[in-house]
Amino acid sequence: MPHIAIDSGEPGIRGLFAFRPETAQPLNALAEVLLRGDSTLTRGERELIATYVSGLNECRFCTASHAAFAAAQLPGGMELVDRVRADAAGAEISRKLKALLAIAAAVQRGGREVTGDLVEAAKSEGATDLEVHDTVLIAAAFCMFNRYVDGLATHAPDDPAVYATAAERVVTYGYGHPAPQQAGHAG
Amino acid sequence: MPHIAIDSGEPGIRGLFAFRPETAQPLNALAEVLLRGDSTLTRGERELIATYVSGLNECRFCTASHAAFAAAQLPGGMELVDRVRADAAGAEISRKLKALLAIAAAVQRGGREVTGDLVEAAKSEGATDLEVHDTVLIAAAFCMFNRYVDGLATHAPDDPAVYATAAERVVTYGYGHPAPQQAGHAG
Repeated sequence: MPHIAIDSGEPGIRGLFAFRPETAQPLNALAEVLLRGDSTLTRGERELIATYVSGLNECRFCTASHAAFAAAQLPGGMELVDRVRADAAGAEISRKLKALLAIAAAVQRGGREVTGDLVEAAKSEGATDLEVHDTVLIAAAFCMFNRYVDGLATHAPDDPAVYATAAERVVTYGYGHPAPQQAGHAG
Repeated sequence: MPHIAIDSGEPGIRGLFAFRPETAQPLNALAEVLLRGDSTLTRGERELIATYVSGLNECRFCTASHAAFAAAQLPGGMELVDRVRADAAGAEISRKLKALLAIAAAVQRGGREVTGDLVEAAKSEGATDLEVHDTVLIAAAFCMFNRYVDGLATHAPDDPAVYATAAERVVTYGYGHPAPQQAGHAG
C-alpha cells in the first residue's frame, strides 16, 4: 500500500502525478525533452538507458514501463532490451551505446563514479559532448524517478498488458499528454 | 576539469544550464515548485532537506549552494544548517522536521529504504501526506541534481562569497529567473 493516500488508484508514478499536478508538469517536461526531444540518440536508445538504470535501482514499475517504451521503439524489441539488461557488454548494440551505458551505470552508483576514462571511452567511439551530457542526465533523472516511485511505495502491476498499453500512449502522445479518457500518465 | 566543454565557464549546475537550456527549463521549474512554491513547509526547511541530502551524496557544489540558500531563509542561519548536517537528531529543529529528514536520508540510500515506520513516525509528529510526498521528491530530486553536477565533473568554487551571492539571487528572483546581467543560475 502506498505511504500516502493516492485517491486515483493509478499505479506507479501515474498516481503521484495525479496527487501532485504541480510537480507532475516539470517532471513530464523533463522526460519529454530527455527521452523524446531532438537528439542524435534515438528514442529507443534513450529509453534503453532509462530502463537499464531503473533495473540497477531495482525499481519494478519504472523498469517494466521503460522496457516497454524501449521495446516499442527499438528494432530488436523486448528481446534486445532483455539482453542488454542481462549483459550490456555482450548485447548486439553499438560500441558507442555500450560505452554510454557504462557511464549511466557509474551515475547510478554516484556522480563521482563517472571517471575521465569512462567519458574518453565513449568519446573514442564517437559520442559527442551532448550525448555524454544527456546520458548523465537521463541516468541521474532515473535515480530520481526510481526513488520517487519506490520511496512512496506505489503499486507496480504484474500484468505486462498495463505497460504495453502505456507504451502505445507514450509513443503516440509523449510524456505529459494523456490520451482522451485517460486521467493520468505513465512515466 | 568538466567532462564536457562548458563554454560559459560558470561553475556547477549553472554551466550545465547554459550548455543545455532545453533541460535547464524543466529542472529549474521543478526546483521552483518544490523549494519555493506553496507549501506548509517553509522555504528554509525545504532548502535544509536539499542541503542534507546533498551532503549525504557528498556533492560539494550543491551542498554549499543550498546551505547558503537555507541559511538565508532560516532564523538559525548557517549555524543551524551546520548543526543539522552534523547531527540532525540533536539539532534545534522541530520533531516533525527531524522525522522528515530521516525519510530524506532513507531516500538517499534508495527508494525502498523508506519504511512504513519512518512515514508513520513523521505523521505522528503532524506531517501531512503532502509534506511526506514533497520530502521524498525533494530528496529524490537532489539524488538527480547531485549526480548531474558531479557526473559531469563540474567546478565547485571554494570561495563562500560565490554561494552567498547566489543565495541573494535565488531568494530574490527564484530558480530559473536570472538577475539582470546574469547569464546563468545557481541551483
